[in-house]
Amino acid sequence: MVVKVYVDMLSQPCRALILFLKNTKIPFEVVTISLRNGDQKKAEFTKVTPLNTVPAIQDGDFCLGETVAIIRYLATKYSDLVPDHWYPKDLKKRARVDEYMAFHHTGTRGGCCGVFVNEVIFPIFNGGKQVPEEKAKKDLENMKTQLDKLDRAFLKNNNWLAGDDISVADILAVSEMMQNTVKDRDVTEGRPQLKAFVNRVKKRLNPVFDEVFAALYGWRESFKK
Amino acid sequence: MVVKVYVDMLSQPCRALILFLKNTKIPFEVVTISLRNGDQKKAEFTKVTPLNTVPAIQDGDFCLGETVAIIRYLATKYSDLVPDHWYPKDLKKRARVDEYMAFHHTGTRGGCCGVFVNEVIFPIFNGGKQVPEEKAKKDLENMKTQLDKLDRAFLKNNNWLAGDDISVADILAVSEMMQNTVKDRDVTEGRPQLKAFVNRVKKRLNPVFDEVFAALYGWRESFKK
Repeated sequence: MVVKVYVDMLSQPCRALILFLKNTKIPFEVVTISLRNGDQKKAEFTKVTPLNTVPAIQDGDFCLGETVAIIRYLATKYSDLVPDHWYPKDLKKRARVDEYMAFHHTGTRGGCCGVFVNEVIFPIFNGGKQVPEEKAKKDLENMKTQLDKLDRAFLKNNNWLAGDDISVADILAVSEMMQNTVKDRDVTEGRPQLKAFVNRVKKRLNPVFDEVFAALYGWRESFKK
Repeated sequence: MVVKVYVDMLSQPCRALILFLKNTKIPFEVVTISLRNGDQKKAEFTKVTPLNTVPAIQDGDFCLGETVAIIRYLATKYSDLVPDHWYPKDLKKRARVDEYMAFHHTGTRGGCCGVFVNEVIFPIFNGGKQVPEEKAKKDLENMKTQLDKLDRAFLKNNNWLAGDDISVADILAVSEMMQNTVKDRDVTEGRPQLKAFVNRVKKRLNPVFDEVFAALYGWRESFKK
């Protein structure tokens, strides 16, 4: 049986899920849901997830939304097809990955995505207009606060965010940080520890990393023109 | 061995964790971390969690932050002391609870907490001043969007948020919604399905529910005076 994976490759969590899957032996097929076209709001997709968000999966007759829930489900069901370091079975190691994944929503994702929406998405939908200066400033401050926590807590004396090897925590985080690069925002600027971390993840996962990020790189090029 | 649980009972996720624990046979002791006094920023607490957030736990020499990670860790380690419905072992049932818990951060919590901070916390730290009208309006709209998802997705044809019995999903959600009541904001207003749900959870868990919410009720009374 093949898992159907509904994604838009321009979405951060979708890329994280596909990057995870490509590093496992879980059989899957990609179904593209174009957020720009509003595919996620269509009745057919509501049957897959009433949350109308990507990514989502269909495994037999079981449908599931929310990236971290999907990762947990797949890593448990297909545990013999997933190298253990991605989501360790050991209770304490797993708890560390879970801790990061809980932080991730309003932490790395909340911080980076707030700035991304202001700098990239808002102007697209508002004829090139920028968000009010005060909002831009506040969201930049929040991003700084969240990234400080990566430096100070998760990456302190550690090469990876959660444990002694790469895990799903790392790909979730890096996919968010990469998103901001489409319009030349390097969130790791002035953060050597974080910069080295992002490069470490890329190096470890290439050539698959660049394959998964091809759509994002294409988007970045389109801004340069 | 007794699990040390670091909480401030005025914090939504702390109450959810304590409500969960009181419905299990996991041995625990409460250590109060007063957010008002800034206990969470003290060096001693940083040793427990460098995230400097509550709740956090210490189980032997293992420390962990982030509510949903803590719940997963405890429910797995002490599975024989936790009635299964709280965090079911069945893969698909568990995935449904995980799906809600992932949604929770920016969903129920993001929605309700945004309004709570505007209406309760901001005036306290700004001499009674209110947040700008536009911000208040935007955050109320976001709360509506998130609560719509509870009605439309999670509670559709269902008494509980994730499955056919009460789970940790329900207590996480209700603890957020209760928070807004300190200053007379009933987030279930005009939402009969959601109102019935909150009452269902209270009824199911009383008298323990009111015991855990005593500090919040006290805070509410202080606003009435």
